[in-house]
Amino acid sequence: MIEDKTPQRTSIAQLGEFGLIDHLTKNFEINQPSTLKGIGDDAAVLDFKDKKVVISTDLLIEGVHFDLAYMPLKHLGYKAVVVNVSDICAMNAKPTQITVSIAVSNRFPLEALDELFAGITHAAREYNVDVIGGDTTSSQKGLIISITALGEADEEEIVYRNGAKETDLLVVTGDIGAAYMGLQVLEREKQVFQVNPNSQPDLDAYNYLIERQLKPEARKDVRTLLHALEIKPTSMIDISDGLSSEIMHLCKQSKVGCNLYEDKLPIDPQFINVCEEFNIDSTTVAINGGEDYELLFTIAMEDFEKIKGNPNFTIIGHMTQESEGIHLVTRANTKIALKARGWNALSE
Amino acid sequence: MIEDKTPQRTSIAQLGEFGLIDHLTKNFEINQPSTLKGIGDDAAVLDFKDKKVVISTDLLIEGVHFDLAYMPLKHLGYKAVVVNVSDICAMNAKPTQITVSIAVSNRFPLEALDELFAGITHAAREYNVDVIGGDTTSSQKGLIISITALGEADEEEIVYRNGAKETDLLVVTGDIGAAYMGLQVLEREKQVFQVNPNSQPDLDAYNYLIERQLKPEARKDVRTLLHALEIKPTSMIDISDGLSSEIMHLCKQSKVGCNLYEDKLPIDPQFINVCEEFNIDSTTVAINGGEDYELLFTIAMEDFEKIKGNPNFTIIGHMTQESEGIHLVTRANTKIALKARGWNALSE
Repeated sequence: MIEDKTPQRTSIAQLGEFGLIDHLTKNFEINQPSTLKGIGDDAAVLDFKDKKVVISTDLLIEGVHFDLAYMPLKHLGYKAVVVNVSDICAMNAKPTQITVSIAVSNRFPLEALDELFAGITHAAREYNVDVIGGDTTSSQKGLIISITALGEADEEEIVYRNGAKETDLLVVTGDIGAAYMGLQVLEREKQVFQVNPNSQPDLDAYNYLIERQLKPEARKDVRTLLHALEIKPTSMIDISDGLSSEIMHLCKQSKVGCNLYEDKLPIDPQFINVCEEFNIDSTTVAINGGEDYELLFTIAMEDFEKIKGNPNFTIIGHMTQESEGIHLVTRANTKIALKARGWNALSE
Repeated sequence: MIEDKTPQRTSIAQLGEFGLIDHLTKNFEINQPSTLKGIGDDAAVLDFKDKKVVISTDLLIEGVHFDLAYMPLKHLGYKAVVVNVSDICAMNAKPTQITVSIAVSNRFPLEALDELFAGITHAAREYNVDVIGGDTTSSQKGLIISITALGEADEEEIVYRNGAKETDLLVVTGDIGAAYMGLQVLEREKQVFQVNPNSQPDLDAYNYLIERQLKPEARKDVRTLLHALEIKPTSMIDISDGLSSEIMHLCKQSKVGCNLYEDKLPIDPQFINVCEEFNIDSTTVAINGGEDYELLFTIAMEDFEKIKGNPNFTIIGHMTQESEGIHLVTRANTKIALKARGWNALSE
């Protein structure tokens, strides 16, 4: 599918490593006051003054984390930035810089790399992060993207995974499960395409799910929203592996238990329809599907009034004593022990 | 060769991603006062107070940057840290933290990963850097290592590539070219081994060169040495791609020319012997061979007396007006224009 979209094919080998880096990085802007020196030396130089620095890194591998058969390169570049920025947001910090390293086969045309970097540049502008460094090299097979994201925060703003208390409320932003179902739709279309390359899929009924998979957003707005509500979460994590897996992280690190309520899970109508079409239980997907990049956090019970009815947030459960364990309370009011069955790159 | 050394093979898939991360990271220590929170949350948290932050990243790909046929995994882990720490040293900063991301095939046994992480842990202790984060995932083919290194410095200590002046002296640490010849020896032994797996190579005559290739060191000491001599370089870079290539970077960014003197190049006697054995011109290798991880820098002419005769440093040339170009002055006193022919991952 790359060939269809990029009829022009310029060899990256003829540019050379330094020529390629110059070409790919020429559109990057420096906007953060904390960036003293970006790309162009042995290292970037940053000045965070009295702020604390938050840093996270992710490695994305073709065939493991993404499939170029249905993931346009521009979207891939955008998403690669988003998943890293999301980790910074999950610390309640403000994203400020990223480094971007890529490895590609010699046979990857320059036009394809330009698409990838257009997506990276777009995300960097959207999230106001400076691209301050990276590495460009060749791979023996497939495309590899490694991004490190930095952010800043005052010490008292930072929220860890280990601060949840026994009576805290469990809150999630947005809706969940849609990214996973978007992936199922795309996988199905890929198979249809392989059987009949001339089929013209009508994906209107799936547009929200597909967008959640191909162009997720990091919840950079939540920091501002919570600040305005005068709420500081007691613990926080982003949903990359799946709600169930993330709840277990918060509980394990905070030494608490949790009751999660099935009837409270925020899910989109399109998500419910498509789960029915695929004959999959929507609750199972909502709690185990990953890649939503929403934020999951706990707040003190006293903050209930501040958050109640706010369309950005859904209270989906409450924490308990550690000895009570971690349970899903179903619509039929039965308790089922939660298991972390989130996406696991190493067992696939 | 992995099988020979690690007869026990534990599957990493059975540990799962989180189990594997716990296992691999349990030996990492936090020693830097600037590390507030290391591995275990969405992001690490750092506090550099009034220091500036220096950050650099590198991607190492099996089959492109290393060959497991002759690179023991423990050495690979060590070297992966060193090449990143070297970039921090090249800014005249103090290395403080690294993040380590790896992608491996499911079929890679846990014992092999333990070797790799033993080398990473050893280097982290040796260079006193905290391992504060990373990512662990599967690859479709081969081993991929992505490391980001951070360091700290006062603003006035930081040395960029662009500060060289027209009359500055050009200085290099240690000796150069040996790492490249070490690679040639190892490549030859690999081919001998493929023809006759029972051959027992006698590598005594090559031990220095092989060590320079398999276990290079970053020149963390140079910052202290220069500080004691009261010298601040006007520009600096580390030698990863080759002396010639690095000189061109300094000249281009500083807008100066350079005369490099062939008879001043610091080379080891073993290096000369092996160049003769391989029938390769030693000067060509000394200026084009990469991976020495020595530091190349310029100093003001007034600092000549402070550095003269110091065994850690060799003055190999001087900068000129930009219009004079970049030349090697040979032993026969002829001037040859330097070309960057350093190692180029993308054209191989």
